[in-house]
Amino acid sequence: MQKQIKLLERPKGTPTKDDFEIARIPIGEPNDGEVLLRTIYISVDPYLRGRMSDANSYVAPFELNEPITSGVIGQVIESKSDHFKKNDVVLGHLPWQEYTVADETTIQKVDHHAAPASAYLSILGMTGLTAYFGLLDIGQPKEGETVVVSGAAGAVGSIVGQIAKIKGAYVVGIAGSDEKTDYLRSELKFDAAINYKTENIQKALEKVCPNGIDVYYENVGGEITDAIYPLLNKFARIPVCGAISAYNKQETDIGPRVQTYLIKTSALMKGFTVGDYAARFPEGMKELAQWLQEGKLTYEETITEGFDHTIDAFLNLFKGANLGKSVVKVADLES
Amino acid sequence: MQKQIKLLERPKGTPTKDDFEIARIPIGEPNDGEVLLRTIYISVDPYLRGRMSDANSYVAPFELNEPITSGVIGQVIESKSDHFKKNDVVLGHLPWQEYTVADETTIQKVDHHAAPASAYLSILGMTGLTAYFGLLDIGQPKEGETVVVSGAAGAVGSIVGQIAKIKGAYVVGIAGSDEKTDYLRSELKFDAAINYKTENIQKALEKVCPNGIDVYYENVGGEITDAIYPLLNKFARIPVCGAISAYNKQETDIGPRVQTYLIKTSALMKGFTVGDYAARFPEGMKELAQWLQEGKLTYEETITEGFDHTIDAFLNLFKGANLGKSVVKVADLES
Repeated sequence: MQKQIKLLERPKGTPTKDDFEIARIPIGEPNDGEVLLRTIYISVDPYLRGRMSDANSYVAPFELNEPITSGVIGQVIESKSDHFKKNDVVLGHLPWQEYTVADETTIQKVDHHAAPASAYLSILGMTGLTAYFGLLDIGQPKEGETVVVSGAAGAVGSIVGQIAKIKGAYVVGIAGSDEKTDYLRSELKFDAAINYKTENIQKALEKVCPNGIDVYYENVGGEITDAIYPLLNKFARIPVCGAISAYNKQETDIGPRVQTYLIKTSALMKGFTVGDYAARFPEGMKELAQWLQEGKLTYEETITEGFDHTIDAFLNLFKGANLGKSVVKVADLES
Repeated sequence: MQKQIKLLERPKGTPTKDDFEIARIPIGEPNDGEVLLRTIYISVDPYLRGRMSDANSYVAPFELNEPITSGVIGQVIESKSDHFKKNDVVLGHLPWQEYTVADETTIQKVDHHAAPASAYLSILGMTGLTAYFGLLDIGQPKEGETVVVSGAAGAVGSIVGQIAKIKGAYVVGIAGSDEKTDYLRSELKFDAAINYKTENIQKALEKVCPNGIDVYYENVGGEITDAIYPLLNKFARIPVCGAISAYNKQETDIGPRVQTYLIKTSALMKGFTVGDYAARFPEGMKELAQWLQEGKLTYEETITEGFDHTIDAFLNLFKGANLGKSVVKVADLES
């Protein structure tokens, strides 16, 4: 038997442990064309909150009494596939459980000698690609422009800011603790960082963005973003990746309407999900891997140990507790 | 002596007659390179409200105790320019007065035999180009898609809907009276029209947009637009041209924040002003003129007679009194 995390109830507002159930289910055995995987790393991401509601979303909601799924790194224990052999390390969108029988068509091999296996859930995976395409395709930062990113010490934001630096932009990060803003300035070489919990966000932005804002990479929504609009430059671009401040709101999320700001500046605001760029993933992964190899990109992980703490790791995302990408380490890799 | 309309005070909320002054000034005489014009038509436009405030806008605010300016059709009475002769009809961005001495570089001749002179303030002028570029460059409607336009019986909206029909879209107009919605359906051949003053906008939209909304051309802002967001389709586009409901608000214009809607649908929202497309004006004017000639486009004007009623014509814009383009006729053309 093994453990599996199921959605028991749709969260009302901020999710709690009571919304989930840890069930015990058989490990299962692979048939032809399948492999049995041991779960090594589980990715926990803010966007999963959206799938826990039944509201219309860009992906189907999770079913009640069915397992949560997300990006998972697994290692092959037993293979009945011609494409995978024992001890291969693979990436898939898989259930939150300790072992999974997976069809060979739903997983892909990753090279855990070229980069740590967990990197394929962060900088070399969907997280890195989300930063890459949102910033470069929608944001299109040019040398010398001012790029502001919110959730800047988070998984996506920390990569966004570094790519903007690679492109020669002046980069400002907004985050929720002095530890995080110190990290942005000293480790990631952001030009400025604002702690929105201790500083007046409007005044702080005015001070550190003397030339206005050309690109705002949106991860958080809410009052932080409200303070961005008045500082937009002509032809500003806003890739809208996430709005974590809104995910747990039960009432309608109310704030200043954006129309007059957009008209005044001919600004563009565009929502996206990384899947919109599926056809261009190889291009993005290649460039991210190259920057990582050249030392132009660095990344941080908040690793929670043990399958039993997966729910805690997820809930911590909404407390701003993580630096960089949040992953749960379920087991050690066998070499 | 002649009359001139000056801005006396910056309007607080909805403008009133007291915000303006009708002054008497000399007619003036042209120097070399200048012409003396008789004002024939004055364009009154909602966007002028923005220039009456001193808030940061996309164009410089009007100065107090200086004349209001807008699109004006004039006829040359006296020319000291090699480029213009007596009785030429010209278009310029000129002061609200009965006569103007204009530099030859600030005006352009229009062919009032090819189309009525006033058309160069509407369908063949900035109004038509605003509809054209906002819809085609940002909205990019495809055959069979659903295009919704607000302020649909207004100067810009009525042209937007017709161009969307030319492109093969299913077109829904939102307007503020049964007279207007009748006009949209019977004269302009819109597929559906909603009277937002008598219908529940959310339910009406759901009913007439069974396939969702692919393009929403924004002229009004406010609660009408709030009802659009939940119906957006994947990869929807929102050209943001105007937000007339917000222009006279003194408090911050508050409504549902847009981020989650944009993320769910990967939708794009982009503000613009027609000046952004200055380099492409000839292309737009050529196609608009051709459609007009082919009978594919029609346009309506609300003509107010007499210079003394210019302020009334402007104030009426915010009462929804106009059908199509609002112009003031100041004098008859001499032939």
